[in-house]
Amino acid sequence: MKRTVYFISDGTGLTAEALGHSLLAQFPGIEFEHHTLPYIDTVEKAHEAAEAINVSSRRDSYPAIVFDTIINKEVRAVISACDALITDIFSSFLSPLEKSLQAHSSYSVGCAQNATDNPAYINRIEAVHYALDADDGAKLNRYDQADIILIGVSRSGKTPTSLYLAMQFGVFAANYPITEEDLESNKVPKALEAYRHKLYALSISPERLSAIRNERRANSRYASIIQCEDELRQARSIYERFKIPVIDTTSQSIEEISTRILADTGIERRNK
Amino acid sequence: MKRTVYFISDGTGLTAEALGHSLLAQFPGIEFEHHTLPYIDTVEKAHEAAEAINVSSRRDSYPAIVFDTIINKEVRAVISACDALITDIFSSFLSPLEKSLQAHSSYSVGCAQNATDNPAYINRIEAVHYALDADDGAKLNRYDQADIILIGVSRSGKTPTSLYLAMQFGVFAANYPITEEDLESNKVPKALEAYRHKLYALSISPERLSAIRNERRANSRYASIIQCEDELRQARSIYERFKIPVIDTTSQSIEEISTRILADTGIERRNK
Repeated sequence: MKRTVYFISDGTGLTAEALGHSLLAQFPGIEFEHHTLPYIDTVEKAHEAAEAINVSSRRDSYPAIVFDTIINKEVRAVISACDALITDIFSSFLSPLEKSLQAHSSYSVGCAQNATDNPAYINRIEAVHYALDADDGAKLNRYDQADIILIGVSRSGKTPTSLYLAMQFGVFAANYPITEEDLESNKVPKALEAYRHKLYALSISPERLSAIRNERRANSRYASIIQCEDELRQARSIYERFKIPVIDTTSQSIEEISTRILADTGIERRNK
Repeated sequence: MKRTVYFISDGTGLTAEALGHSLLAQFPGIEFEHHTLPYIDTVEKAHEAAEAINVSSRRDSYPAIVFDTIINKEVRAVISACDALITDIFSSFLSPLEKSLQAHSSYSVGCAQNATDNPAYINRIEAVHYALDADDGAKLNRYDQADIILIGVSRSGKTPTSLYLAMQFGVFAANYPITEEDLESNKVPKALEAYRHKLYALSISPERLSAIRNERRANSRYASIIQCEDELRQARSIYERFKIPVIDTTSQSIEEISTRILADTGIERRNK
């Protein structure tokens, strides 16, 4: 049984997708076909969406599942009338919130964080540029600005994690690769000495590291399991000796790694 | 009146934040203080969280507002007993879903997309590395791989948009800067000729471009309003002449720009 799912919004659709994906992940045995319909902000577009939903419900012989974050009441009314299971996110929660806040919601489209003149947004974009500039050991002279400096051997996940921390949370994350030379010295690299309190290490299993490196340089010494084991063992010795916190990235996504680092360090999320 | 808000999850907290921020944005007149408590996955941690919530409710003389995406029932029960407005996202929607799907939810923590061996996740990370490699006109020989090639004058928003398309949607986005030389030729740059069908232009107002460039090189010719106007006018002429689609980034966030480009081009979202 395959079920068709629609994420519908008069904005980007990102909130409907985030919530919908989390909920559907609770039903691992069922196959879902996803469709996102963003910017459904007129009654006319709503009728087109409704038609698509009804067609898929008839085709599947099961009602489609709709997650919607539509603010506009007329648009929402059209979607609500569909032959589908409607999970109307805003209307479920806005009225208890209005009561508790003793205020009417503005029913305005889009969330405040999307405005480009919002300080939190401007900071996020600056953080993305910072992460790019301070990627892979570059721009050591800007480490004063870093909230955190991720360290680890090549391909342990530093770059995507730095970028995610920047883009999602506006955190200024530099990253520095631990080279073979650093490993042999069994010390924190000189360039990082003044910033030891900002260091956070990414570790990974030798098997996974070898697999990732093999995609980059197949059958190289660099990708060999022995080389990976050696580097990781030496790196761990430095982290232990200098009491640098470590997170294992082997089976964690950049979302999990990033949120765990923030929770552990107390660095503030600046996504709002 | 300031109200204290908690986003609580036994996972990353990202879904609770996304939904909570969207809902609270409907109350622009009220000041909110945000706290995210991720990885609340034991009853003991839940009691600590509950204590923090109750303290803030007493301090504010108004109940705190809690958005939670907790799967574990014992943990959820502790949070539900708080002196707060509880917006229990999962329990509101899981039972209608169970009924419609004729299946029990697994009540497992975390969403499937977070698994690092999930093809969609692996593709997202590859897309991030691609966006970095093919940033700013580099790696023209890999344009065959691109789903889309963003073009625009310097600082029109190409890099953050490429990275967001990659990280959120697993879309392979290259980006290419339109230089003064390109503008003078009044043609699509030679390197892009074979990929005209993949081009998408980012435009921006001269005032905003000048402000952004001034942060980079204050009082330079590069940042002057006249220079920005000239470049943007010449670029627009190329886009019109060669029928390249254009989006104005002046007052749109990278989330909005990215989702509008996907909606316009029909490029599939690959976040699931």
